[in-house]
Amino acid sequence: MEPVKIGLLGLGTVGGGTVNVLARNRDEIARRAGRAIEVVHASARDLAKARICSLDGITLTDKPEAVVDDPQVSIVVELMGGTDLARDLTLRAIDAGKHVVTANKALVALHGNEIFDAARRRGVMVAFEAAVAGGIPIIKALREGLAGNRIEWIAGIINGTGNFILSEMRDKGRDFEDVLAQAQSLGYAEADPSFDVQGIDAAHKLAILAAIAFGKPLAFDKVYTEGIEKVTPEDMHDAGQLGYRIKHLGIARRTGEGVELRVHPTLIPERRLIANVNGIMNALLVMADAVGPTLYYGAGAGAEPTASAVVADLVDVVRTLTTDPNNRVPHLAFQPDAISTLPMLSIDDAVTAYYLRMLAKDRPGVLAEVATILGNAGISIEAVVQPQPPHGASQAKLILLSHPVRERQMNIALGQIEALDSISGKVTRIRVEQLDGD
Amino acid sequence: MEPVKIGLLGLGTVGGGTVNVLARNRDEIARRAGRAIEVVHASARDLAKARICSLDGITLTDKPEAVVDDPQVSIVVELMGGTDLARDLTLRAIDAGKHVVTANKALVALHGNEIFDAARRRGVMVAFEAAVAGGIPIIKALREGLAGNRIEWIAGIINGTGNFILSEMRDKGRDFEDVLAQAQSLGYAEADPSFDVQGIDAAHKLAILAAIAFGKPLAFDKVYTEGIEKVTPEDMHDAGQLGYRIKHLGIARRTGEGVELRVHPTLIPERRLIANVNGIMNALLVMADAVGPTLYYGAGAGAEPTASAVVADLVDVVRTLTTDPNNRVPHLAFQPDAISTLPMLSIDDAVTAYYLRMLAKDRPGVLAEVATILGNAGISIEAVVQPQPPHGASQAKLILLSHPVRERQMNIALGQIEALDSISGKVTRIRVEQLDGD
Repeated sequence: MEPVKIGLLGLGTVGGGTVNVLARNRDEIARRAGRAIEVVHASARDLAKARICSLDGITLTDKPEAVVDDPQVSIVVELMGGTDLARDLTLRAIDAGKHVVTANKALVALHGNEIFDAARRRGVMVAFEAAVAGGIPIIKALREGLAGNRIEWIAGIINGTGNFILSEMRDKGRDFEDVLAQAQSLGYAEADPSFDVQGIDAAHKLAILAAIAFGKPLAFDKVYTEGIEKVTPEDMHDAGQLGYRIKHLGIARRTGEGVELRVHPTLIPERRLIANVNGIMNALLVMADAVGPTLYYGAGAGAEPTASAVVADLVDVVRTLTTDPNNRVPHLAFQPDAISTLPMLSIDDAVTAYYLRMLAKDRPGVLAEVATILGNAGISIEAVVQPQPPHGASQAKLILLSHPVRERQMNIALGQIEALDSISGKVTRIRVEQLDGD
Repeated sequence: MEPVKIGLLGLGTVGGGTVNVLARNRDEIARRAGRAIEVVHASARDLAKARICSLDGITLTDKPEAVVDDPQVSIVVELMGGTDLARDLTLRAIDAGKHVVTANKALVALHGNEIFDAARRRGVMVAFEAAVAGGIPIIKALREGLAGNRIEWIAGIINGTGNFILSEMRDKGRDFEDVLAQAQSLGYAEADPSFDVQGIDAAHKLAILAAIAFGKPLAFDKVYTEGIEKVTPEDMHDAGQLGYRIKHLGIARRTGEGVELRVHPTLIPERRLIANVNGIMNALLVMADAVGPTLYYGAGAGAEPTASAVVADLVDVVRTLTTDPNNRVPHLAFQPDAISTLPMLSIDDAVTAYYLRMLAKDRPGVLAEVATILGNAGISIEAVVQPQPPHGASQAKLILLSHPVRERQMNIALGQIEALDSISGKVTRIRVEQLDGD
């Protein structure tokens, strides 16, 4: 089938990231969506600016209307930011019968009611997963995954810049102004950081979450908003003494009287998972009547995390356009004629580190014997612990942490170790995974 | 529009929970799906058994074929468990042109390839969100939310019983056998706990996750499976000394050679969020190339958490059956003609606890003055901290933690406190939220 052709409004961080993800994962995406997705036209304010992506096959213009009006473009992706021109171009695309994907939280929070109304009348899709919490699929979770529930409340760390600043203040006892300057030099905060630190960005996102959770029109003007400028390292320390962390939360809560919508610094018990979400990461804790609490964690901003959500929306649109509506989403995610040929491996081929526990005769040289066997098998040792045996015991516990090794190698080495006279019984082994990431 | 009529196979814990959620949230679900969803026919092995749900409006039978064959039933919900009869009835429903929703992980892991093939040929939907990690919408996240990504690996705590046992062993230094007996008496573990403790249940779920993540057919027989029976409190203690926790993980990882699929006890660094997921809760950490790490946390079992996923699948099917395919999922989650009338509240109406920090003249009676104002406003104090002031200082810091109170009341009290001669300047206030749940 013909690729679906899309136009991008804006080719900055998120636009460039979207072009890169669509190019790098082109096959994977086509296998899921049923058709390839191709960027054919893109607009940027400054045509001469250096880009993070290749422009192969893309017509570049400084007239965004040209992208919207391009007859081969069937989906317009709005990544330009701002609310005036973005609103006009979004409505123009809808009028022309084009589907729209947007990452623009301010646009959705302020003009969403008008835009969705226009889209319904025209019979086109408008998708906005990337507008809230970047790559975390929270819109999908709330609109679809929790559709059987009555949502009670949502509490979210939904501004990564603010969370980075609070995390640094807490970890290093630094002042707000000091960390803000660093966040700006790292590119996390804009030259004008007011949207982030005053909570306006979080308020845009909270307005969107609340509308979806509670079935209300968007009401950005009802969000109470307080920033993080006045939080001091001293407050963080004092809160810590009481067992709390300070996080900048967006909270939407259904009460007997209505819906609370508020963004402000908040003390939360340090034992909660969400209290331990640090740096630029985002997380949303949702309380719903049937499922209870669920939490969603990931990167809330950045080129490729945001592109991840933009492309998910594109796949959603393409699946609806293209496939049998009864099998919109393939059972196993990829189209049935595009299943992978990767082999499923045996455990012998797995590579992990190991925790090894064994009982050794308490005499000199045992550790050397064990270490020699491991060394000959190419297995290096990260840590050894040999606790003092109880008084009078003739055997001592020996604990080793290995570096990663293929299981097949470890099996051979363990066979040799268990055959040693100086080792009693079997070696207990538990695999170790670093799970770098969260 | 006419309600959609569904039939349930199995009316135990999950079946009863599904009936209850559909009844309790009937309006909310109809507002999201565009039509009401009604259970009209259900089967159970023992008709005389007590149920956790009302049977109003439901024809009960001990012949599951009667539910499948009932001409008014358009969606069959398979919650009976097992793989032989469940397979036959699922294929029978598909043959009859009915959509199927299932929570049966063993059925999907063992017979999914055959069932999905039949569904594609017949043009019906088969949905199975409830088969993995209960109420956490992880199938939706992987199949749709991360559709732009190349998935690198998934590591999950996907058996709540096993995680409960390991959490108790670690917290209380208790033996495996001892905690297993408790889990059985609490109803977390079956009389025959082998599926949980030997890792078979987790292997079923991992096979499903891997197929979806990597675009492969289901391959349960390729999953290496090791249970938790041999983990000792001593291993947990020793691992803790090294900075690790022991969790029972399902791991699916793409390598240069193929796909690793393994379920086994695993040491993970204690600083990872997933290392801090305790008790019967589940969590999945997904590493993907564009978005980076994302984590999904929630209840993986139980009547209503599992029902939450079953009903989400029902809403998905009904939305596809009913609505304009271009607007399958309403922009704001609820159908545009079913928006809520709940008011959005002002911050003055919010009820939270407060952390208050103020500078007081270091003289007797100040705390009494402040406490009197708070007491008269109906605000009770949970904690007071008054650090020793630096030598020679004439002012002392006073920190209070209040119980929850309406913001309007707190504003009045703070005005009075700031007017006291004994208090300097403004009172710093930060709201406190317990966020009970994670």
